Amino acid sequence: MAKKTPIEFWFDFSSPYAYLAAMQIADMAEEHDRTVVWRPFLLGVVFKENGSAPLTKQPMKAAYMNHDVERFARLYDIDFKWPGTFPLPTQAAARAYYWLEQQNPALAADFVAVVFDALFARNRDISDPATVLDIAEKMGADRAALAAALDDDAVKDKLKAVCAEAVERGIFGAPMTIVDGEMFWGADRLWMVEEWLESGGW
Amino acid sequence: MAKKTPIEFWFDFSSPYAYLAAMQIADMAEEHDRTVVWRPFLLGVVFKENGSAPLTKQPMKAAYMNHDVERFARLYDIDFKWPGTFPLPTQAAARAYYWLEQQNPALAADFVAVVFDALFARNRDISDPATVLDIAEKMGADRAALAAALDDDAVKDKLKAVCAEAVERGIFGAPMTIVDGEMFWGADRLWMVEEWLESGGW
Repeated sequence: MAKKTPIEFWFDFSSPYAYLAAMQIADMAEEHDRTVVWRPFLLGVVFKENGSAPLTKQPMKAAYMNHDVERFARLYDIDFKWPGTFPLPTQAAARAYYWLEQQNPALAADFVAVVFDALFARNRDISDPATVLDIAEKMGADRAALAAALDDDAVKDKLKAVCAEAVERGIFGAPMTIVDGEMFWGADRLWMVEEWLESGGW
Repeated sequence: MAKKTPIEFWFDFSSPYAYLAAMQIADMAEEHDRTVVWRPFLLGVVFKENGSAPLTKQPMKAAYMNHDVERFARLYDIDFKWPGTFPLPTQAAARAYYWLEQQNPALAADFVAVVFDALFARNRDISDPATVLDIAEKMGADRAALAAALDDDAVKDKLKAVCAEAVERGIFGAPMTIVDGEMFWGADRLWMVEEWLESGGW
């Protein structure tokens, strides 16, 4: 039997639906003998490329989402509180992720969950690099080295390359779960991802 | 026990996701002792109101949808072929629906399924009023009376009022399934609708 490919999970740290899905995708992957490749990117970059209007410009959709995210979290019994500032820039968190991934992939994966929890359950301002450094340091990362990395051109270029890859591959929203080359958009598609994992595709 | 409220199903006849969902919502309603109130409306009206970009302006999302709709139909084993012209105007079909609903609600409900099938399984141009008349006549409707109704101001006003209601209630996309006042957007949310119907809400 061919080796099972990893599940790619593309997200922006500021997406509440990505938060709701991230909390489950790791378990789902493990259950089906797959690993997860975490791919934080910047939604703003693909929105611009794709001509998508941000939610702040779509009041009806934004009102729906406000209600829906809370309903979704209640159903899954996931802690959720709207951040004081939303949406918010996520460059620092995403750059930190890619630096951590190079150092220690397991820690980087945990970092995803802790950052999401900080933003959407504890109202911590993860757009502030100091918050990102606090989180990573508490998890055992080298604060000074990470602080330097956040301003390092190589790390910035890595995130730029990831965003360019998102555009190239047509990843127009988040979360985007990719299994065997198949893209599934949204936290509400995890049932279909599971169907794919169980059936091997159709 | 309080009487169960009907399930409202808001859609545009040109939405393939509405087609995929319509094929299932009637069964789901019956299973849970509910009726369906069919509410065809014009997506263009709410897109304009909400500032949403049509898919033709969002190439990455459109490419995803092209693939996803076919995949969705395969999974559910529903006949699906992209119409020769897409998207297309659906005023005639929607107006016909509301006239039929007044005459014969059961026939009107069947009309929804037959029009969807004509468009998405048989590539018939339902933007043409003659096609709509052919379909309705074959189902037993009075062709001449319906032809007159399509140009009747009262029927046109009914569709306008429904579109205004969609805007008023924040129905920004299709399909929108409404159960007990809760809106669920998308064919991919039927699992959540079912969860709501089974649990009575959360």
